[in-house]
Amino acid sequence: MSNFTAAGPSVREIPDGDTHERLVCPDCGFINYENPKIVVGAVCTWQGQLLLCRRAINPRRGFWTIPAGFLELHETAENGAMREAREEACTEIAIDGLLGVYTVPRISQVQLIYRAELKDGTFDAGEETLELDLFAWDDIPWDELAFPTVHWALNHWREIGDATHWPPFANPPGKNGNSF
Amino acid sequence: MSNFTAAGPSVREIPDGDTHERLVCPDCGFINYENPKIVVGAVCTWQGQLLLCRRAINPRRGFWTIPAGFLELHETAENGAMREAREEACTEIAIDGLLGVYTVPRISQVQLIYRAELKDGTFDAGEETLELDLFAWDDIPWDELAFPTVHWALNHWREIGDATHWPPFANPPGKNGNSF
Repeated sequence: MSNFTAAGPSVREIPDGDTHERLVCPDCGFINYENPKIVVGAVCTWQGQLLLCRRAINPRRGFWTIPAGFLELHETAENGAMREAREEACTEIAIDGLLGVYTVPRISQVQLIYRAELKDGTFDAGEETLELDLFAWDDIPWDELAFPTVHWALNHWREIGDATHWPPFANPPGKNGNSF
Repeated sequence: MSNFTAAGPSVREIPDGDTHERLVCPDCGFINYENPKIVVGAVCTWQGQLLLCRRAINPRRGFWTIPAGFLELHETAENGAMREAREEACTEIAIDGLLGVYTVPRISQVQLIYRAELKDGTFDAGEETLELDLFAWDDIPWDELAFPTVHWALNHWREIGDATHWPPFANPPGKNGNSF
């Protein structure tokens, strides 16, 4: 699409009958309704160890994360988390509950992070992953985690321990995801 | 914007480096990345009775619903649910937990429905509401509910009873939100 020179939706205005400013294209009149995006992912374990992936893409290339990404259209949240594990870690997971519902208002993300178990313990680096491995709790590279929500999810996973039912966690008190 | 005659993003193609078809504008080259939208709402009670609103807008004008609507940019899910109660029922609510996380894949919605209590028992019809009232369980107009997810949320509210902590419900088994 590099042969286009027009700006696309680039003018801020409140459309007729609306209550919020939206970006409108001055060339074609298209109104770009933006809403928060949903990230789905999972804290995945195998025999008590945690699966972490080192990101091959920005943002935060080279840092460690759990398998997670944007939910696609017409996909359930659980299926999206399973797809992300498949894409980023070439692994099949069994989800057993919703661990956390985190909000990062600055970037308008709602993250639904599940607790899951690898189905057969095999995994491999997908296209968006430099390397990946299973980590014992004490070996987690805390200073090299990609995002605050990964930090929260790992700690919340630890907090529920062996529980089979729990209410999902929200952001830690006072945290908005802008810093660890 | 009625003086525009161009089509906006109307051509389906897979952008360079992408994995999914997106709608692209043939006039300006804008790529319209569409993701699922988040609906936030709450089953709201006052002295054991449930607040229901009769919709003044389509879809499902004239049918009964709980206060709920689309999460806006830079808003937390809880704040969005509180805003919707304010807009549709002119009432302030105190949220005490996440009741359900429902997915309706056909229309690409993820709904985060909370359990809440009215703060002072006062309410009034907002612009999107024809009328509203508190209903005892046995008086709920089951045949005139607006959406399957409202039906699910009310039943899940009933199921948790007096519990103060619970795992959130998902869609009832086999239900995708296309029918009650």
